[in-house]
Amino acid sequence: MAQTNHRSANRERLLDQGVMMLMEQGYHGTGIKEVLDAVRIPKGSFYNYFGSKEQFGAEVIAHYIEPFIQQVNEHLSGPGVDALSALRRYFDALISELEAKSFRGGCLLGNLMGEIGDTSEVCRQALARSVRRYRDSLKKGLSRAQQEGTVRTDLPAEEMADFLVDAWQGALLRMKIEQSVRPLERCCDHLLGAYFKV
Amino acid sequence: MAQTNHRSANRERLLDQGVMMLMEQGYHGTGIKEVLDAVRIPKGSFYNYFGSKEQFGAEVIAHYIEPFIQQVNEHLSGPGVDALSALRRYFDALISELEAKSFRGGCLLGNLMGEIGDTSEVCRQALARSVRRYRDSLKKGLSRAQQEGTVRTDLPAEEMADFLVDAWQGALLRMKIEQSVRPLERCCDHLLGAYFKV
Repeated sequence: MAQTNHRSANRERLLDQGVMMLMEQGYHGTGIKEVLDAVRIPKGSFYNYFGSKEQFGAEVIAHYIEPFIQQVNEHLSGPGVDALSALRRYFDALISELEAKSFRGGCLLGNLMGEIGDTSEVCRQALARSVRRYRDSLKKGLSRAQQEGTVRTDLPAEEMADFLVDAWQGALLRMKIEQSVRPLERCCDHLLGAYFKV
Repeated sequence: MAQTNHRSANRERLLDQGVMMLMEQGYHGTGIKEVLDAVRIPKGSFYNYFGSKEQFGAEVIAHYIEPFIQQVNEHLSGPGVDALSALRRYFDALISELEAKSFRGGCLLGNLMGEIGDTSEVCRQALARSVRRYRDSLKKGLSRAQQEGTVRTDLPAEEMADFLVDAWQGALLRMKIEQSVRPLERCCDHLLGAYFKV
């Protein structure tokens, strides 16, 4: 039991470290040895945890997106808030965080879609799954907003959620090079604040 | 004179090769030696052409975007076509090309914004300049479309062009992981075909 806990704690530390390093240095710029060294796990034991660097990348991707989905859900389950306002507050909170981090990092999913989305099949599938899971959490909010009468009903909630996720990813890229949250605000203003709105 | 031509031809070959390799392998995954080997230019002479790998990256970025700007301009200067239709045809042509290439590559600017947009200052500036140049070519089209009465005038053309560029970059990322042009069509349908339209 103690060994299982230890094993699972090490796995978690490797994934957390993977998120940090892949965000900072990209997939190709990050060596497995470097990740292991940073969390002081001996090199030989990597394959006890992950089958390959690609498999590690895929698990880092899934690990990374969870807190974002949880945050969307938390905003949506807040009492007395309509779903459209909840979504807007979720994005506003993210924008504040990104500003506080001086626009660094952006979204690991976006970065990896760009870097290896078409070259690693294992990571491509993990990215597609994670983006769809995130899309589904936004879809849930948009769908409730449709029922509440604040979002247009002539477009399917899933279609709007897909468009929002994609436009947001592009805005995150632009944020990094403009060193500004303006692209993020623009995305939210035009979609949540205008195009989607009733 | 012959030497100047030779020098300039070598420079061009290095930039073309740089576009290909950075697209395929990313910035961190591409070594200068590899680029030089591929075009059979001796390693020692790299610094006759570029001051550093970062400087090379910055020039590859500027080199890459030129044909896209030219294509937008060509579509816009076609006879007898209104600007909104010309923009749509430009994007439709791009979508067909990306489909023919099996969704590989995407946009080098988007990939590098994700990978090094916040870690290399030299490349960040080159990316910002190139994206704005591209944005300006789309703005010119949207602005003409406003005069022609096909695009809304309550939003500035530059604001719409910025949003279009960013949403398109996000759609390109999504294309790669979904292996589908649907995200690209969605971006054009909702912006050029709906939100921007009068």
